[in-house]
Amino acid sequence: MEKPLSGRFRVLDSIRRGGPISRVEIADACGLSRSAVTGVVQALQNEGWIAELPESGNNGTNGTNGDSHRGRPRVNLDMNPAAAHVLGVKLSLHRMSVAVTDFRGDVLHTTTLPFNGSQHPDIAADMIEVGVRRCLIEAKIDKSRVLGLCVAIPGYINNLEGMCYWSPIFDRDDVAFGPLLAERFPFPTSIENDANMVTLAEHWFGEGRNLSNFAVVTVEHGIGMGLVTHDRLYRGHNGIGPEFGHAKIEFSGRACRCGQLGCVEAYASDYAILRQVLPHFSLDSYSQDPKAYHVEIERITAEAKAGDQSLAGEFAKAGRILGRAIGNLIATLNPPKVIVTGEGLRAGDMLFEPLVAEARKLQLAGNRFETDIVAHLWGDDVWARGAAALVLQQAYMDPGAPIVEQAGNQAIV
Amino acid sequence: MEKPLSGRFRVLDSIRRGGPISRVEIADACGLSRSAVTGVVQALQNEGWIAELPESGNNGTNGTNGDSHRGRPRVNLDMNPAAAHVLGVKLSLHRMSVAVTDFRGDVLHTTTLPFNGSQHPDIAADMIEVGVRRCLIEAKIDKSRVLGLCVAIPGYINNLEGMCYWSPIFDRDDVAFGPLLAERFPFPTSIENDANMVTLAEHWFGEGRNLSNFAVVTVEHGIGMGLVTHDRLYRGHNGIGPEFGHAKIEFSGRACRCGQLGCVEAYASDYAILRQVLPHFSLDSYSQDPKAYHVEIERITAEAKAGDQSLAGEFAKAGRILGRAIGNLIATLNPPKVIVTGEGLRAGDMLFEPLVAEARKLQLAGNRFETDIVAHLWGDDVWARGAAALVLQQAYMDPGAPIVEQAGNQAIV
Repeated sequence: MEKPLSGRFRVLDSIRRGGPISRVEIADACGLSRSAVTGVVQALQNEGWIAELPESGNNGTNGTNGDSHRGRPRVNLDMNPAAAHVLGVKLSLHRMSVAVTDFRGDVLHTTTLPFNGSQHPDIAADMIEVGVRRCLIEAKIDKSRVLGLCVAIPGYINNLEGMCYWSPIFDRDDVAFGPLLAERFPFPTSIENDANMVTLAEHWFGEGRNLSNFAVVTVEHGIGMGLVTHDRLYRGHNGIGPEFGHAKIEFSGRACRCGQLGCVEAYASDYAILRQVLPHFSLDSYSQDPKAYHVEIERITAEAKAGDQSLAGEFAKAGRILGRAIGNLIATLNPPKVIVTGEGLRAGDMLFEPLVAEARKLQLAGNRFETDIVAHLWGDDVWARGAAALVLQQAYMDPGAPIVEQAGNQAIV
Repeated sequence: MEKPLSGRFRVLDSIRRGGPISRVEIADACGLSRSAVTGVVQALQNEGWIAELPESGNNGTNGTNGDSHRGRPRVNLDMNPAAAHVLGVKLSLHRMSVAVTDFRGDVLHTTTLPFNGSQHPDIAADMIEVGVRRCLIEAKIDKSRVLGLCVAIPGYINNLEGMCYWSPIFDRDDVAFGPLLAERFPFPTSIENDANMVTLAEHWFGEGRNLSNFAVVTVEHGIGMGLVTHDRLYRGHNGIGPEFGHAKIEFSGRACRCGQLGCVEAYASDYAILRQVLPHFSLDSYSQDPKAYHVEIERITAEAKAGDQSLAGEFAKAGRILGRAIGNLIATLNPPKVIVTGEGLRAGDMLFEPLVAEARKLQLAGNRFETDIVAHLWGDDVWARGAAALVLQQAYMDPGAPIVEQAGNQAIV
């Protein structure tokens, strides 16, 4: 059996989501008994992760507490966001973003540096070291207050073993990147697939915030997917997540960059659209120059939005095909919600409206409960917040040595 | 957040899976601390659900215990299977099976009665009452010793609310069948989709026994699916599970009985194969006479196995298409294992070999970890064991009043 979500995690996560919140409300939110909650809360207060906010007589300010508390002030609890910090790094083909967040996962500062794909792993690790140092200096945060670091990487990533089996980021396969990172930093480090990061960010802060089960589809250069079931990120076989971009839409269809035919990303990703509209498009030449690639897809999107009917038609076609794939995803999982996100959503309703229409058409008549399909355009901090969530998840699970002096409590009381 | 699997569930399930087993081994298996295990074990012993089996000096008989216990006999724990009983009922278009199991989920007795689909819900409930009474009489089990009853129904079932939105079993939609059952029995009752039952049976007793994540594909009259993630049955939106049979293989393909085009079950289910090989096949006429339908598909399968190349080719085609759908399922979920089961597997390797070959062809080159695809032909008791697992899951989760006198312990000591 998997290790369960600890009582400590359940209480901290309920306070993060609902704070300021009373002990009774925490018990309701996290499915634990009131006495169990009381014990965990006491330990978390002693360690400085949360603090009490006594209310001055006026009950029920957050509208959820109907109990009467005559003569006894209601006591709310909230996170101590300054109790610790975590670092998130996102590596893409043309840049590196480093962000530092507080103990609640709110981004405090971001540093961006140039980065190119197909990199030697040692050099990538060196550059992360430089970026992290600069980010902490700029944010005036000492590394002794950092709980951990997570690096988001596109490709086949095994989070548990720190292995990268394949990524456009590196110049080779089968990189044990986790150990390379671990020897450079005094705090715990990890790596994770970037679509999983977005999925965690949706679960902790976004459209999946109040859901135990939902799917995320990311539309970018390629097409990715993440999944939360039973309140937890689903990782597939050997820690490697879904490869939804390579689910087939037409079994003898268009060639995909993976070498197979008819994958959804061969129709609906950024590269698939560029390939349809640029006469001399070559994925190889653009992988030498990812910046030019981004300029091109943004230009084409703008022209389509400005009224170019032929270009707009390509985005609509891409949306319809993605809608078919999402229809199959719904048949396979029937999740309450599918969140569509990623830079490909820059195309807006040109892509998203045909997507939803097609997915709806494929819904079975007998199914009375439509899966909600929503578009969610994040800012650049989504990766950082997902990475923060991954580190915080671990920190919430198990009691570690408190890294913060009690004075940290002053931040919120 | 979902209610967590309780410590009680984790301990009981570890004993069921691994017994006889020591407290230390239980703690390892279920992810709890040794002190937590000790407390739960004490309560379970007091209530008569488990019992101690003292060993006479000879340590490590089950080969998993390397500790030395000089001077102190190692104490193992095991289930008390006679502590209670549960009932499982399977309704299909041509018969009803009622089974009673012990507290470990082993089937003690099965009773089969004729049943026809498109039934009035009151009549179906009456017939279940008759079948249950007969099964308990034949097995010589008093109803006071029954923990609960679960009824497996094909169709759109919401287990939590006891609602059947659609099923070929009933003559109408939106049947609140849960309440109809509840008023007939002195113990808790529930209903569940039949593919979910098979999935639970695989998780508790079968090919998914040691896995936290896996998928099950059922091939019968139609095609169904079930999914376990994070050690729990995944239920989709509003408790309604996947409709994998209606994932599309070809978007303008063959007509499906659901009214849409290109669904996998329009190519690979029993009815799809019959439709291809019988000149005057009509689904409507066979739904009037489900027994004749079963006779036909069994006859055709036998002729194909006996050497009819044309018929054998139809099964191979069905297998290839199902392999494509399973390829997409693997792209979407990357589970460690896909278990293919159901009466459609009577066709054996004629269907299963092309299925695996096609799914393998669709695997991405970069993915080093093949999903295991296995065929699992159950006996008739699979539904009963799944239904038993569903009832036992609830009984393991929460302490109920002990329904058994202490003498029950004698069964295993």
